[in-house]
Amino acid sequence: MRRLTTLTTLIGAASLLAAPSASGATRDYWVAAVPVTWNIVPNQRDAIMGMEYAPSETVFGTVVYRRYTRNWRRPIANVPAGSGNSNLMPGPLIRARAGDRLRIHFKNLDTAFNRSHSMHFHGVHYKPSSDGAFVPGVSGRDGDVKPNRTWTYRLTAGNDSVGAWPYHDHGPSMHESIEGGMWGMLSILGKRERAPDREYVVVFSPMGSFQAIDGRAFVGNTPVFRSRVGDLVQWDVMAMGSEHHTFHVHGHRWKNAMGVDVDTQTVGPAESFRVRWREDAPGTWLYHCHVETHMEAGMIGTYSVAPRRT
Amino acid sequence: MRRLTTLTTLIGAASLLAAPSASGATRDYWVAAVPVTWNIVPNQRDAIMGMEYAPSETVFGTVVYRRYTRNWRRPIANVPAGSGNSNLMPGPLIRARAGDRLRIHFKNLDTAFNRSHSMHFHGVHYKPSSDGAFVPGVSGRDGDVKPNRTWTYRLTAGNDSVGAWPYHDHGPSMHESIEGGMWGMLSILGKRERAPDREYVVVFSPMGSFQAIDGRAFVGNTPVFRSRVGDLVQWDVMAMGSEHHTFHVHGHRWKNAMGVDVDTQTVGPAESFRVRWREDAPGTWLYHCHVETHMEAGMIGTYSVAPRRT
Amino acid sequence: MRRLTTLTTLIGAASLLAAPSASGATRDYWVAAVPVTWNIVPNQRDAIMGMEYAPSETVFGTVVYRRYTRNWRRPIANVPAGSGNSNLMPGPLIRARAGDRLRIHFKNLDTAFNRSHSMHFHGVHYKPSSDGAFVPGVSGRDGDVKPNRTWTYRLTAGNDSVGAWPYHDHGPSMHESIEGGMWGMLSILGKRERAPDREYVVVFSPMGSFQAIDGRAFVGNTPVFRSRVGDLVQWDVMAMGSEHHTFHVHGHRWKNAMGVDVDTQTVGPAESFRVRWREDAPGTWLYHCHVETHMEAGMIGTYSVAPRRT
Repeated sequence: MRRLTTLTTLIGAASLLAAPSASGATRDYWVAAVPVTWNIVPNQRDAIMGMEYAPSETVFGTVVYRRYTRNWRRPIANVPAGSGNSNLMPGPLIRARAGDRLRIHFKNLDTAFNRSHSMHFHGVHYKPSSDGAFVPGVSGRDGDVKPNRTWTYRLTAGNDSVGAWPYHDHGPSMHESIEGGMWGMLSILGKRERAPDREYVVVFSPMGSFQAIDGRAFVGNTPVFRSRVGDLVQWDVMAMGSEHHTFHVHGHRWKNAMGVDVDTQTVGPAESFRVRWREDAPGTWLYHCHVETHMEAGMIGTYSVAPRRT
Repeated sequence: MRRLTTLTTLIGAASLLAAPSASGATRDYWVAAVPVTWNIVPNQRDAIMGMEYAPSETVFGTVVYRRYTRNWRRPIANVPAGSGNSNLMPGPLIRARAGDRLRIHFKNLDTAFNRSHSMHFHGVHYKPSSDGAFVPGVSGRDGDVKPNRTWTYRLTAGNDSVGAWPYHDHGPSMHESIEGGMWGMLSILGKRERAPDREYVVVFSPMGSFQAIDGRAFVGNTPVFRSRVGDLVQWDVMAMGSEHHTFHVHGHRWKNAMGVDVDTQTVGPAESFRVRWREDAPGTWLYHCHVETHMEAGMIGTYSVAPRRT
Repeated sequence: MRRLTTLTTLIGAASLLAAPSASGATRDYWVAAVPVTWNIVPNQRDAIMGMEYAPSETVFGTVVYRRYTRNWRRPIANVPAGSGNSNLMPGPLIRARAGDRLRIHFKNLDTAFNRSHSMHFHGVHYKPSSDGAFVPGVSGRDGDVKPNRTWTYRLTAGNDSVGAWPYHDHGPSMHESIEGGMWGMLSILGKRERAPDREYVVVFSPMGSFQAIDGRAFVGNTPVFRSRVGDLVQWDVMAMGSEHHTFHVHGHRWKNAMGVDVDTQTVGPAESFRVRWREDAPGTWLYHCHVETHMEAGMIGTYSVAPRRT
């Protein structure tokens, strides 16, 4: 009760007009920007083409978003265990339902590159002070969180926020940060919408000379997603960078947002969509970007469907 | 009355079958191709990255479409004042309602480059003689209007023409002309559709090494669009050139044509769409192409929403 | 009767659960991969720009899919005569109705390059053994059909398979094969859907330094599609390769899958869509990719509509 009152005061009356009725929960996420050493191709090979890569070609230092417990006491997994996703790319999966308020407590721990960072969220309602974009003479501290400083982004999920959406650095060095992996997704369900049994986050982005999924390249490094016949599976798909991609899953079709059956769907930079189906096709399948040069550069992985439990 | 009769004779019976019932207005536009000197970055700077550009890097000679009064007597603004759009790119905003006929009287005043030009319109009904495309051995004068010559393009807006559409040069040197800014938009409302309170034209196109919006690059040069809380705002978005873009506005979401809530939307060469919302988010916001290399090269601007008038 | 029983046994119970009720037909196609010498620009010219090309710039050896009679006895046309399509690119037009089963009998006759090939189909239901993708340690012979070997792909068209879909090589050298023309389309109608009077297959793909439609570049080489006023025409459009395209037809608009009127539509690698309209616009019209550099490199053709028969 006290929390809601405080939040109302902070957000102010104007934005509440646009927000859904105040019956939702308030969800807190604690996130930090942390420097890490990252290997795009941990097994050092492209299994399909039979190519080997040296660590000098695949390892680099970068900054990522990492989820923490309250007050940034202890780092925890960005995406729930068993999801198949790497631990640090994408950043924390921010979950909410329409009507909820989100407080994203962000701390910049980038003492390696010593750069300002921020978080800019798609799909949700917020005031300019939670926009997170750096525009000299216009934006405030939300778009320019200096090392060892913090900022709290206050967001509201409306009924028009249902879906899967990107967030990413929009600070002064956003272009380097985005290529380095400073992005993640929001997954927002409708007020009474059924949660999926399995949820996979797929982020297409270039990394150096590779084309990565969740920061990894080539089968054996990219996430292995797993389900079972009968599961309601959900894919949260987005792209970051400068290229358009086409998301394809073998042996499956889905209804796109228009109710049209497709098995390949374009996603451009910062576009995003949710794909859902009731699983019925046991086997090991490929999922990949169907842009030929992207497949060749690593944008491909496997999806494994177990038979129905008997 | 006399006008309609003449028009009927000129268009001929065949195309009338496809056209809507003859209750609409006939609208005349007078347009010329005129040589101009254009500065892509008038303030000579990229305010976000803190970069300076010399005029030698940003000024070039080109040809644009310009609106005139009847019989090309006097040039007038391409887009109504207060719209935020530059005066010469895009070309004249051609407005109509479903059921209307349009006569676009075009004169080629390109005495600088001395090239043939034309106008090719998307979204509307017309006979081949109003197509405006240059195909040797097939097309006529409509696709090859030589300097100091004129051509009248006769178009009909059907019920299937409602929306925002491109037009552009389709003459023998169309590729240079399009990179130089020879394009504009048609904005066609349904027969009884409400007109927006504010209408913004956003054309994404490359210009030399820059990525421009309406022929300008970087915040401070690109159009500053303005509205007020409560306004019905409409964005007419298209792309020209060879690249795909993703249109994004901060702090807002809209229903795309399928009724799906998005805040980022792909637009490829000559694709176009209309975005509408009732404004409810006061503040200064960024709008931009979300392709990273395009943002870096100038494809970004600001949108300013004033509080509700009290 | 005997055929259906055999097929049921082979497909197995699991996939039948997902498949439509067993009232459909079983359709057999006999296809081989065959080496050919191909000329992208048979008339050696770009008629619009007035450029000439030498055969040394336009002729190359490649491998294509070719349709045969039963047991690969005799080659036949890939696409029915009079369609305007080239004979060998695209590969055989695979037609079915929702509920049908398809058996695609594939033989690799590529004795020129001596490479393994396969067929991977979009939009239809199949078991992993009919997927056709090469993944070392995972896939079987379906993804790696060696020269002079055969494989039968067993597919089912569901209600969610209605539309136009790609198929293509997904073997070990798929990237070279796809650039060389190893692709075609499936066209699947609803159970009681009306077949079109004219059906055109449009595949956008790069070929060397050209941008081709169905393996040909420039007006005069690309397919000339023909119809008559009153015809129900259908365009099956897809892209192969690494680039996004925008399909545009002059003088026409169509409802896209969302019921929105468009005349230009993005198609990325392995995306596909069907466009239908009742023809009402006599004349010779251009159809093309609206990406400027693609138009310049050959991705343009003509569509000729005869007046209504009197």
